[in-house]
Amino acid sequence: MTFASDNWAGACDKVMEALAAVNTGLAPSYGADPATAQAREALSAYFEKEVAAFFVSTGSAANALAVASYSRPGGVVFCHVDAHLSRDEAGAPALAAPGLALDLLDGPRGMIDPDAFRRRLSAYPEGVVHHGQPALVSLTNVNEIGQCYGPREVSEIAMIAKERGMAVHMDGARFSNAIAHLGVTPAELTWRAGVDVLSLGLTKAGAWCAEVVVFFDPAMRRDVSYRHKQYAQLLSKNRFVAAQVSAMLKDKLAINLARHANRMASAVAEVLSASGKAQLVYSPQSNEVFAYLSPAALDALVEVGIKTGGWMSDSKTLPGPRSPDWTMQRFVASFRTTDTDVALLKDALAA
Amino acid sequence: MTFASDNWAGACDKVMEALAAVNTGLAPSYGADPATAQAREALSAYFEKEVAAFFVSTGSAANALAVASYSRPGGVVFCHVDAHLSRDEAGAPALAAPGLALDLLDGPRGMIDPDAFRRRLSAYPEGVVHHGQPALVSLTNVNEIGQCYGPREVSEIAMIAKERGMAVHMDGARFSNAIAHLGVTPAELTWRAGVDVLSLGLTKAGAWCAEVVVFFDPAMRRDVSYRHKQYAQLLSKNRFVAAQVSAMLKDKLAINLARHANRMASAVAEVLSASGKAQLVYSPQSNEVFAYLSPAALDALVEVGIKTGGWMSDSKTLPGPRSPDWTMQRFVASFRTTDTDVALLKDALAA
Amino acid sequence: MTFASDNWAGACDKVMEALAAVNTGLAPSYGADPATAQAREALSAYFEKEVAAFFVSTGSAANALAVASYSRPGGVVFCHVDAHLSRDEAGAPALAAPGLALDLLDGPRGMIDPDAFRRRLSAYPEGVVHHGQPALVSLTNVNEIGQCYGPREVSEIAMIAKERGMAVHMDGARFSNAIAHLGVTPAELTWRAGVDVLSLGLTKAGAWCAEVVVFFDPAMRRDVSYRHKQYAQLLSKNRFVAAQVSAMLKDKLAINLARHANRMASAVAEVLSASGKAQLVYSPQSNEVFAYLSPAALDALVEVGIKTGGWMSDSKTLPGPRSPDWTMQRFVASFRTTDTDVALLKDALAA
Amino acid sequence: MTFASDNWAGACDKVMEALAAVNTGLAPSYGADPATAQAREALSAYFEKEVAAFFVSTGSAANALAVASYSRPGGVVFCHVDAHLSRDEAGAPALAAPGLALDLLDGPRGMIDPDAFRRRLSAYPEGVVHHGQPALVSLTNVNEIGQCYGPREVSEIAMIAKERGMAVHMDGARFSNAIAHLGVTPAELTWRAGVDVLSLGLTKAGAWCAEVVVFFDPAMRRDVSYRHKQYAQLLSKNRFVAAQVSAMLKDKLAINLARHANRMASAVAEVLSASGKAQLVYSPQSNEVFAYLSPAALDALVEVGIKTGGWMSDSKTLPGPRSPDWTMQRFVASFRTTDTDVALLKDALAA
Repeated sequence: MTFASDNWAGACDKVMEALAAVNTGLAPSYGADPATAQAREALSAYFEKEVAAFFVSTGSAANALAVASYSRPGGVVFCHVDAHLSRDEAGAPALAAPGLALDLLDGPRGMIDPDAFRRRLSAYPEGVVHHGQPALVSLTNVNEIGQCYGPREVSEIAMIAKERGMAVHMDGARFSNAIAHLGVTPAELTWRAGVDVLSLGLTKAGAWCAEVVVFFDPAMRRDVSYRHKQYAQLLSKNRFVAAQVSAMLKDKLAINLARHANRMASAVAEVLSASGKAQLVYSPQSNEVFAYLSPAALDALVEVGIKTGGWMSDSKTLPGPRSPDWTMQRFVASFRTTDTDVALLKDALAA
Repeated sequence: MTFASDNWAGACDKVMEALAAVNTGLAPSYGADPATAQAREALSAYFEKEVAAFFVSTGSAANALAVASYSRPGGVVFCHVDAHLSRDEAGAPALAAPGLALDLLDGPRGMIDPDAFRRRLSAYPEGVVHHGQPALVSLTNVNEIGQCYGPREVSEIAMIAKERGMAVHMDGARFSNAIAHLGVTPAELTWRAGVDVLSLGLTKAGAWCAEVVVFFDPAMRRDVSYRHKQYAQLLSKNRFVAAQVSAMLKDKLAINLARHANRMASAVAEVLSASGKAQLVYSPQSNEVFAYLSPAALDALVEVGIKTGGWMSDSKTLPGPRSPDWTMQRFVASFRTTDTDVALLKDALAA
Repeated sequence: MTFASDNWAGACDKVMEALAAVNTGLAPSYGADPATAQAREALSAYFEKEVAAFFVSTGSAANALAVASYSRPGGVVFCHVDAHLSRDEAGAPALAAPGLALDLLDGPRGMIDPDAFRRRLSAYPEGVVHHGQPALVSLTNVNEIGQCYGPREVSEIAMIAKERGMAVHMDGARFSNAIAHLGVTPAELTWRAGVDVLSLGLTKAGAWCAEVVVFFDPAMRRDVSYRHKQYAQLLSKNRFVAAQVSAMLKDKLAINLARHANRMASAVAEVLSASGKAQLVYSPQSNEVFAYLSPAALDALVEVGIKTGGWMSDSKTLPGPRSPDWTMQRFVASFRTTDTDVALLKDALAA
Repeated sequence: MTFASDNWAGACDKVMEALAAVNTGLAPSYGADPATAQAREALSAYFEKEVAAFFVSTGSAANALAVASYSRPGGVVFCHVDAHLSRDEAGAPALAAPGLALDLLDGPRGMIDPDAFRRRLSAYPEGVVHHGQPALVSLTNVNEIGQCYGPREVSEIAMIAKERGMAVHMDGARFSNAIAHLGVTPAELTWRAGVDVLSLGLTKAGAWCAEVVVFFDPAMRRDVSYRHKQYAQLLSKNRFVAAQVSAMLKDKLAINLARHANRMASAVAEVLSASGKAQLVYSPQSNEVFAYLSPAALDALVEVGIKTGGWMSDSKTLPGPRSPDWTMQRFVASFRTTDTDVALLKDALAA
């Protein structure tokens, strides 16, 4: 049993059914097929406005394509010090947009602090070429420590960015979990709050491969079409990704699966808190729980084969562990996580 | 009914079964799962030597990753004037390996002429920096006009390349069709003939998404691992690609499906020849037939809804059409093509 | 004595004087100094309109910066098959603008044939992403075989480009020689004929290091400023380049020096023609003469130590040599070339 | 009068004489001339070993070329949080080596703290691809706050790097000032201490344009030759840079000029300290003095037209100002700075 990552969960039943259903005979290639057209429509409906959507095969590709589409000469992208963009993509954005630089920000609860952002921007005076020019700010939502930006927090960052003519990107690898937690609409959390482009991740939520870069300005479609192809992300048999996307959006399947995962994570958090052998970093807001575990607790989990992931943060704002030998662990619930899993965790910690 | 592209064919039954079978519960992510390990072993067995295999989502990504892995400062890649690498990837290789230049070669039957290659290399004298340095030669096999390099022809090109310390790449988007046509082993057509890296395409053959970059020197694994990740091609739930690869290699499924497609293409060629309204460019050696069609023939196909693709070649060596108003069309057969399809084509041309 | 290259000639007296004169005490760095401001004004006056000018250290850098400034996703640059951009910069433009592809054109007299250009553009239908999108056409003037595009010929190419929304670049490594030959103004040969950006080379003309990228739309200044810096071409003590530029423009020094070099080249051409041992490829239009030389003639030059450069062209349109053992040689005159040099050449050939 | 930057100082007499002397008639281009050969020999003698030297036109180009030459897939470069490489080159290294990421380190006195470096490296476990792979560490010497790494300190960092197979770069924009301050030989401060490549800056020291990338392993020459050309840094009339380099090395001119500048900076520091209106950040070790100035002191300087530069540091280790309204200023002395300049500063502060 694992709490290591929602990437371990495979695909949900509806996605497997959709894959089988879309495989009926011949269909045009490279996204000119009806299933792709239908997924595009579903996305525009989901976001309550016409969007330009690009299907890609990984979350890294989604982020890199999104960010590269707003690159500028000497361009600088601002993101959180723990952002996947900076720490977990081996430089993918800077290969997709050569010369792109990252500037890292911090803030409590894994959030970019608006004041820190504004202060940092003042280090890039307009017209001084040596430091490069601000191009984009990227928010991860759910963020890297499992917390969520609400529409107001997104909007606050976006307004600062817009003053400098910058674009706003949201890395939504766990977007559905944020929506489920916040109880807002996809539109409210994105373009209505100032987001220009979203990496919409549906893989962690329950697809096997369904990542979409959603541009809220349809005029981006023309140039990004070429970039998408040049970045080798135009799938020849795209209907198989499109079918997954449609399945995940239909009747808000992704959000419902995410709600389940969030609930499981809350249950995990309660178990951890109650055990006395673990200390939550923050109260969970998604399907991820971050907690400091005592060496004994960690041993107990290893013994019964419950996997978690050791975690490292570069943020200076995290509350520290109760005891210096407690280490930070990440527990991730998925659509597959069950009450039994949580009960097993409880038993292991009680042992 | 279509002869437009083998990309229209969707996925074969075995692949769909493999996808369902691999979706059992939890498995490690990012290729650390048992299905991926099994696909790697299957690939090494298939090629009769230990290989370093990287799973990617598109053929363009396969080519770009392969080529970039042998890039050099000022590096020049040699390929055929019609190569997908040059004409159909919107610059993907040069984005994956910035600064990479292409030098285009020609030759009869869509093949790189060894003498032309050797002559061209003499335009890059060792130590003269202005023109760049030869880095790699790429052969497409099956090539862009549907013809096949045999092991001896591959070897001849490879030997010229090795004299200059260059790497040899094979774009095998239709590798199984070449194997089926030539009646040689995968090993004989690749590393035994001097190939360093193969883009092994299994998507056109019958998977929905299964492309592999196969390095025949396992020592390439270390550095390419980082490049693969940085190029955003490390899939989080890779078991679903791995399962397709294993299914396609098992009992030589890909080759058997390709043999069927090749046979259907031969039947198409016969029908075209016999019609009097079409002229084969070359006798077919794969699942692709290229022919000049009379305007009447083209109209006849359009009328009954048989799709083909207009084709353009930059080669100076192709035999011209019988009449100037005949235009080149490509007919592609796939694992789905049936005798009925061919009969329909025959009827349409007879009308 | 040499006719190998105008790059052998060192710097003219006025340039050396200007370097000494500008070295008086302290001055702001990175182009904020009065000498740079003065050179900018001189450039705007020279071109009879406000321009955005960027000083760089090599002709390759000028071309790469110019081209990169108009790059697009999947962008394709069209140039002549012999263009320096393609053959002599080791991929510099594609490193400055990663992913950029070149498409090579041909035509008589080293010129891009407008019909060939138009036909080639039709291979890039709007909205088809696979081949990339046309971004820019680059003309070399004086071109690689020493011939000149007049304003009408520039305009014809530019109009085709504009129809597709492309930019027009002129590689003016020997711009002054073209101006001197054509007897037109710098404005007439550039922006008035549809040129968007010029690589203005003053080094070959008589400076030691004075290359300028001239954008005829001053609005390019903002973004290119960052690109120029990021491309590592913002010189800390720029006044020393600026002083050379001002000196070369003052009283049309560059054009006057070019006129002398052109005249010397014409004299060389006459000597070659009259010798019976050489055959001009074209009647010269600049400071370069291309001619086929008999083996005896070549030996005669080597014997007395007169250097020329062997030349290779990929154009299919050049008139061939009278005899197959005659080889193409390039003779380049510079501001330093004298009547005595030409007389020595005459004597050598007569021997 | 200015203490704004040593880039304001123009060129010293010996350099101007060398430029005039090298301009005698014809010489081969692109570095094949005798003056370039002589400069290469002078560099090898200066460093007491055969080196591979590349002449470039800016310090940014030197750093970018040096770093790019050791790039790797997913490569990460470690440097100080204030490094020019990170803060003042608008992303130049990441354009020269696309995909390259920076990881920023801190430490007292503007130095990379070896323990912080070692700790940070542990965040890149061998074989984990997500974070990228360590490729190079870059030390600036003289560093950004005017302090110097001695051979032992360089060696300590280099040993940590070598354990991970990383290269060691020294950004020596003010290398001569470090040599003059430390009283060691160029060899002792570089390759004998583990440095693989040096950006040797001679422009700030008194040339107008003389930057050299020095590789201590001559085997780097082959590949870097192509990179250097592709990066558009191969100057056509290189003898003019070579002559400056030779002049600056002859009789240790650069070091002697640097010694003068260092002495002037010490005098500035004394004047500042004694004034009571300024507080040194550190005791100076080069030609740069960093000090907090009271508003009154700053006004006094502005009034008499003495220029300094406001300075910002991202280091967390700098001692803070005595009073919150005192701001950090940088004073830079050059070969042109005189006792009179220092006396004027003293008078201004006394007023």
